[in-house]
Amino acid sequence: MITVLAGGVGAARFLRGLVAEIGPTSVTAIVNVADDFTLHGLSISPDLDTVRYTLAGEIGSLGWGRADETNAVMDELSQLARVAPATSSATDWFTLGDKDLATHLYRSQRRAEGATLSRITHELCRASNVEVRLLPVSDDPIRTIVELESGEQVSFQHYFVALRHAVAIRGLSFEGLQHAKPAPLVLDSLRDAERIVIAPSNPFVSLAPVLGVAEVASAVEQRREQVVAVSPIVAGRAIKGPAADMLGQLGYECSVASIARLWSPHAATLVIDEADADRAKDVEAHGMRCITTDTIMRDIQSSRALAAVVSKVPLP
Amino acid sequence: MITVLAGGVGAARFLRGLVAEIGPTSVTAIVNVADDFTLHGLSISPDLDTVRYTLAGEIGSLGWGRADETNAVMDELSQLARVAPATSSATDWFTLGDKDLATHLYRSQRRAEGATLSRITHELCRASNVEVRLLPVSDDPIRTIVELESGEQVSFQHYFVALRHAVAIRGLSFEGLQHAKPAPLVLDSLRDAERIVIAPSNPFVSLAPVLGVAEVASAVEQRREQVVAVSPIVAGRAIKGPAADMLGQLGYECSVASIARLWSPHAATLVIDEADADRAKDVEAHGMRCITTDTIMRDIQSSRALAAVVSKVPLP
Repeated sequence: MITVLAGGVGAARFLRGLVAEIGPTSVTAIVNVADDFTLHGLSISPDLDTVRYTLAGEIGSLGWGRADETNAVMDELSQLARVAPATSSATDWFTLGDKDLATHLYRSQRRAEGATLSRITHELCRASNVEVRLLPVSDDPIRTIVELESGEQVSFQHYFVALRHAVAIRGLSFEGLQHAKPAPLVLDSLRDAERIVIAPSNPFVSLAPVLGVAEVASAVEQRREQVVAVSPIVAGRAIKGPAADMLGQLGYECSVASIARLWSPHAATLVIDEADADRAKDVEAHGMRCITTDTIMRDIQSSRALAAVVSKVPLP
Repeated sequence: MITVLAGGVGAARFLRGLVAEIGPTSVTAIVNVADDFTLHGLSISPDLDTVRYTLAGEIGSLGWGRADETNAVMDELSQLARVAPATSSATDWFTLGDKDLATHLYRSQRRAEGATLSRITHELCRASNVEVRLLPVSDDPIRTIVELESGEQVSFQHYFVALRHAVAIRGLSFEGLQHAKPAPLVLDSLRDAERIVIAPSNPFVSLAPVLGVAEVASAVEQRREQVVAVSPIVAGRAIKGPAADMLGQLGYECSVASIARLWSPHAATLVIDEADADRAKDVEAHGMRCITTDTIMRDIQSSRALAAVVSKVPLP
């Protein structure tokens, strides 16, 4: 049994490789919910959906949304939105395809009926024949607030999608994190796992709000020797998304050494890419063992090869 | 200037004829909102949408939804809903086409931004190039509760769609009606109109919650001489929907005489179909003038002919 702390695209690709390697029923994913937001009345959980769509083989080619998607609703909405006030979000700045919308309608209706996010996620996984145990880190709302260099505070989706993460940030905070409780089975799956993996996701916006849930942090720290983290930074760059820019903006060197500094309290082992082999000593200087392999997940084969290393590396 | 008190399909057809006869900018429609409901997180206003789609020439052939509609979202949702608990409404019992969904997404987002239903309706009319002034009777929520013969209380949509109005009812009530205030321009449009028309809509579920707004009722009663009602009952039957069944179930004879009894406090004139010419005396016995014409709106020509009679009948 392996439990993975997961964000969106990078974690989803890693999980797909891990499922190929050890089978779906041996895998639990504890997924970030701090990107979740409400738009057009709908409850949207981007990371949970990216992971589920990927594991169901339904993910769009860009790493989000659905494959073979149509856009009938958004095409019509963009006609209506021409008359919206300039300050309104009733526009098509956030694209939701038709198949993807069905997920959000389902989730929104079930939430209105009082179902928890973890219960709904379980139902959606059954509908998609996803056998991995997919858990939101919490059923309580956690929301990322991005403080821009200008001092303006915006939601994560505004920063990530509307601003295309092309602006410098000064800091991050997480509404609701302080009082968030782990969802059912989260602590069990951390306690019972043979090993815990910190996926190659953005440490600031994907994993900080997972490891920021107090009981999750202490459960992971108690198992530090069994925790293997995978660096999302390769040769000073992020494979996808703003992780590299954020490191610099938040005062870190953009390298695997900074990833080691971040995960050292939680993980005894860090897996880095061969391109960073010369930085292994810096990782070890942070009190972590360092494993070097090819970490770039270009396709299912390379994802599986990475998962094989992560799931077999001898624990200290 | 003519102001029409309106429900859904029957009122929409009448309004289309009236627009053909006197032009869109001379027409105000005050529309029922008691059928409004929330599903899948979305704010749905069936009567406002039916009227708007009809006036925009976009109405589906069944009298609701959109023409040239697709169902990509519902097709996918019906796959997901297989796993929903039996008690859940996260199913496809209420069909929402893709183009229609865009309206509900727009409305839901604008409501979340604090816009009133009347403001949103104005925006949607602009987007659809509908020049008729379309007003929800109130920006406050009004919700029809149907008491079934079994004593069970259900929402209007549950009765109308899920139960296909094929069950007997014992009574109707309207949550929020007592404290509902007229939306902006509603009272003005009643005061300033040359004449007021009560459309051939269901008197119990479409017009009662319009005329049940206290200030609307007294504004209409003050202008009783200028009010012309059109009977939705022809030869003891309703053209569409459960109006005829409801008359019987609520203790009324199913005839134009009962419509006269209902509208007599509000309207000085009742327009009935030629098929009911023999009941004119019964209408007059309720203190109303009775006008006989062809009231069945088979097409735009017959709608326009009815509108011509209603808009020209000399007032008392």
